[in-house]
Amino acid sequence: MKLRVVLVEPMYDGNVGSIARLMKNLGFYKLVLVNPCPIEDFGYAMASHARDVMENAQVVDSLEEALEGTNLVVGSSGVLILNTDEHLRVPGLKPEELAFKLQKTKGEVALLLGREDNGLTRDELRICDMIVTIPTSQEYPIMNISHAAALILYQLSQVEPGEIALANGDDMDRLYDHLKSELAGVQYPSHKLDKTMLMMKRIFGRAQLTDREVQTLHGVIRSLRWQPRSQK
Amino acid sequence: MKLRVVLVEPMYDGNVGSIARLMKNLGFYKLVLVNPCPIEDFGYAMASHARDVMENAQVVDSLEEALEGTNLVVGSSGVLILNTDEHLRVPGLKPEELAFKLQKTKGEVALLLGREDNGLTRDELRICDMIVTIPTSQEYPIMNISHAAALILYQLSQVEPGEIALANGDDMDRLYDHLKSELAGVQYPSHKLDKTMLMMKRIFGRAQLTDREVQTLHGVIRSLRWQPRSQK
Repeated sequence: MKLRVVLVEPMYDGNVGSIARLMKNLGFYKLVLVNPCPIEDFGYAMASHARDVMENAQVVDSLEEALEGTNLVVGSSGVLILNTDEHLRVPGLKPEELAFKLQKTKGEVALLLGREDNGLTRDELRICDMIVTIPTSQEYPIMNISHAAALILYQLSQVEPGEIALANGDDMDRLYDHLKSELAGVQYPSHKLDKTMLMMKRIFGRAQLTDREVQTLHGVIRSLRWQPRSQK
Repeated sequence: MKLRVVLVEPMYDGNVGSIARLMKNLGFYKLVLVNPCPIEDFGYAMASHARDVMENAQVVDSLEEALEGTNLVVGSSGVLILNTDEHLRVPGLKPEELAFKLQKTKGEVALLLGREDNGLTRDELRICDMIVTIPTSQEYPIMNISHAAALILYQLSQVEPGEIALANGDDMDRLYDHLKSELAGVQYPSHKLDKTMLMMKRIFGRAQLTDREVQTLHGVIRSLRWQPRSQK
């Protein structure tokens, strides 16, 4: 498993530096920054001996660009944000559950960490195949972003690589497009379509499809579409 | 299980604040500071909504005082420091292994975190019943103290309380004193005595003795002492 850490609009360079250090501590090197704050001396001080991770970070201006070429997108979210939208599946996976699901897989996983104040937006969370949430105290659930990163990255550092090839993001998008266009083509209620598609994305995201499974699902959708509808 | 987080001579108030926040995030409240740096505005800023944990922290000037009334002392140590003394048992427990050992126990556990630059001294590590070490990359093994705290405290937050009563520190000390005085009273080589006693401490520390087991061990030592020595 390869990992890409994507910080979405980080606001404080100290956190970017802390996360860079943490990445190197745990053996991860690929950092992508989407519209970051300026990285100044304090950021480099916090990175300490991980200055190289900071300097090699890729800076981009859209999440789409940050995710190019990945096979699976994991978003991090606090409990409170998740609670507002049941289709995002509340609560998300705990860090150790995420790690368990990724055992023996290969492909590149993007871990998305959001803004220090508001995390990832709902639209950004919709893009994610899986959501990881850290179980925190109800009394003070909001964790510093670099501590959340520590807990997730530590668990991911324990994942053993394997040969289970995850389908890539483009192939998954084609599968969702196929299903959506077929549903739109029959009498599926249009007011339900978006929510259903989000749920499908969550289900297949959690299931971590392989290339072969994606092909089979295309076949299943095609077959269903041609079956005469049974009468109740 | 009750937890007491003991920071030994912390050098930066930002780290003290970060750890206070983290504690509250994960449901821990008892913080003890041994000879800390001055805690100023930056420290309170990092604590954010855990200002209460900072304000209620107990400030003491000796480790002995910090550990009063605890049942088990766990020291955190980086890999490199451990490697210099084989009697400290290299490597220590991973955070998840520590949590596994503490499942279903009751009593108060002290988690010792050392100075940002040099960690805990060898003498401080000798006091510990168990050592926890985070497996890090060889390329950059030294983690920020608050990130190490995050990984350990998260695992401890997953521990379920139970009824296995751990013997308290004073009772354990009496057991070690008993064994040491009996060994000194026979022909046990004096140059080996300290190392052997440290090893005994590690063994019984890992084993997490209950009150009853401590009493039984006193009996075992007394019995052995009165047996005639067998001839080889």
